Amino acid sequence: MGSKNKQSATEHQDSLSMRCGFGWLMFLVEVLLFGALGLCIFWIVYYGGGVAWANDTSKQFNLHYVLMTGGFIFLNGESILVYRKFACCKKIYNKVIHTIFFVLSISAITIGTVSAIQAHNNSQNPRHFYSLHSWIGLATMGLFALQFIVGFTSFLVLLCCDTRTAKFRQQLLPTHVTFGLIIFSMAVAACVTGLTQTGHHRLSDSYKDLPEQAIVINVFGMTIIALGILMPYFIYTIRFKRYTTVLVN
Amino acid sequence: MGSKNKQSATEHQDSLSMRCGFGWLMFLVEVLLFGALGLCIFWIVYYGGGVAWANDTSKQFNLHYVLMTGGFIFLNGESILVYRKFACCKKIYNKVIHTIFFVLSISAITIGTVSAIQAHNNSQNPRHFYSLHSWIGLATMGLFALQFIVGFTSFLVLLCCDTRTAKFRQQLLPTHVTFGLIIFSMAVAACVTGLTQTGHHRLSDSYKDLPEQAIVINVFGMTIIALGILMPYFIYTIRFKRYTTVLVN
Repeated sequence: MGSKNKQSATEHQDSLSMRCGFGWLMFLVEVLLFGALGLCIFWIVYYGGGVAWANDTSKQFNLHYVLMTGGFIFLNGESILVYRKFACCKKIYNKVIHTIFFVLSISAITIGTVSAIQAHNNSQNPRHFYSLHSWIGLATMGLFALQFIVGFTSFLVLLCCDTRTAKFRQQLLPTHVTFGLIIFSMAVAACVTGLTQTGHHRLSDSYKDLPEQAIVINVFGMTIIALGILMPYFIYTIRFKRYTTVLVN
Repeated sequence: MGSKNKQSATEHQDSLSMRCGFGWLMFLVEVLLFGALGLCIFWIVYYGGGVAWANDTSKQFNLHYVLMTGGFIFLNGESILVYRKFACCKKIYNKVIHTIFFVLSISAITIGTVSAIQAHNNSQNPRHFYSLHSWIGLATMGLFALQFIVGFTSFLVLLCCDTRTAKFRQQLLPTHVTFGLIIFSMAVAACVTGLTQTGHHRLSDSYKDLPEQAIVINVFGMTIIALGILMPYFIYTIRFKRYTTVLVN
């Protein structure tokens, strides 16, 4: 009986420390998500003079930066966190919020891509999709669209035959989670290559002297990298009530 | 009895299809790892004129590209794959090969970093660690060193008290695996930002016309991105004899 009490106390302690660690990590990830978006907006308003939809190549690119950071990093990140944040709510509510975030994210990414194409068209010698950044961006968008279609069909449409498709959905889930994080990492790669291009293009040789704007760009990039580190750690390592990794050998 | 036979036949089929999928995926990852290193060597030999240790900034940077791709992508990737490739061997052999790959990787990365610093010193206005690429690179190297020290101490040195440290090592393993993949993803980000810089720097405006060299650089970058996709998928989603994800709710 004493041993049982002791075990229960240890479990309670484990659960408390886990909840505490979870809370802090969630707080940190949220700070980084809002921080990345905030830094991007600060950068383009303070150093870039704001955004424009036409007639100003530089400001049109500014719109591209905000919408891509908003869509690929902020909304995509928030969407991934939904199941962790509202774990106590009904699963279907989580699914609907997860989907809404993705729809918003896709809208932002689409408008952001169009704004970059229009900004290119404004320049003297318009060429599209030649850089490594654009290739990574296109691959990320392709995988993102595929993940959305497969996810929407499998986890929402197939609910019409709930019991019959339960096993299939259960089998698909780990792949869906892994690909969600892979797409987030690819979005991180697309963002940092874009920032590298922009930093060298806008600051050219003065980049070497690390002026204020260079520090803002680098810190903004490192915030996105930090999210690329914390997001998979958060999703895979911290244990939750639904999934865990066990030794089966 | 009939039902038992049926179940056993399904399990056998599952295991066969899993082994087949595993084999193909391993082959693909190996092709990409050797492909990335091969493309890098082809690029710097055919378009960059080879490597040098001193007196030639461009060739010194070429050495940086080969050693960083070799260390951070090829050797790091091979090291991660050791446990999957030689799953039938004794675990201690796997650990030793895993460690040897890491030691080789650290050597390549250290020499590669020194070669970039020396190349910078060769230029007219030498400045170091100002770009986003260098910040990402430094962060990746820091985490890599930390992971090596923690991993070496926990999974090799602590074997001296095997039974007493078994639980600790078991608890640490998922974090070690996740951080290994995070570091690989960060290395991917460092490589593609470096390639973006180099592409725009070496090709400048001609990049827009996608000359041969630009295609080689982009394909090389996309090979590294493909590794950034396949590696976590391979490690997390394909099931193995040691670890699996189960529903515990």
